[in-house]
Amino acid sequence: MSEYNIDFSKGLVPTIIQDYESGKVLMLAYMNEESFRRTMDTKKTWFYSRSRQKLWNKGESSGHFQHVKEVYIDCDRDTILIGVKQDGVACHTGAESCFYTKILG
Amino acid sequence: MSEYNIDFSKGLVPTIIQDYESGKVLMLAYMNEESFRRTMDTKKTWFYSRSRQKLWNKGESSGHFQHVKEVYIDCDRDTILIGVKQDGVACHTGAESCFYTKILG
Repeated sequence: MSEYNIDFSKGLVPTIIQDYESGKVLMLAYMNEESFRRTMDTKKTWFYSRSRQKLWNKGESSGHFQHVKEVYIDCDRDTILIGVKQDGVACHTGAESCFYTKILG
Repeated sequence: MSEYNIDFSKGLVPTIIQDYESGKVLMLAYMNEESFRRTMDTKKTWFYSRSRQKLWNKGESSGHFQHVKEVYIDCDRDTILIGVKQDGVACHTGAESCFYTKILG
């Protein structure tokens, strides 16, 4: 267990990014302990890229930083929910949210 | 790629459950192809339990079913977001949401 008792024992921890004002779910990415620590320290989101196998700071290339306003963990302490103020847009496609594809409803 | 081109190649797909009216994030659980198919067929949520290694229908023991109203997939097609009408509460602890532990903000 890490600081804040987040359970990284099962691997990377899925982290939900939500607009803290509108409640819109913007994206999901993965954290390891180091990215979580940097997120808490800098109040900007850091993730671990599974494809590139390295840490990345959201916005480092696009300028679309996410300013951390609220952080929650779930009852099993193996999922993180972060409320952010999003600079620009969350999705690399230019969409406001990565969840722009509706398949039902 | 499955029907709807959801990418199950990296393993189980994290699925965010959100109250479709309030926007509150209720929980995150994992789907495999079969649980996704059952969810789409029954319009109630089915997941794959990593600890029990079996499918489960949310609400099967508690009666707290989740009625599927909207389904989205993300830009990478490897995360699902479902808007639900929740019977009772989402969390097995009795809390409305599994994210009742605030660690920042």
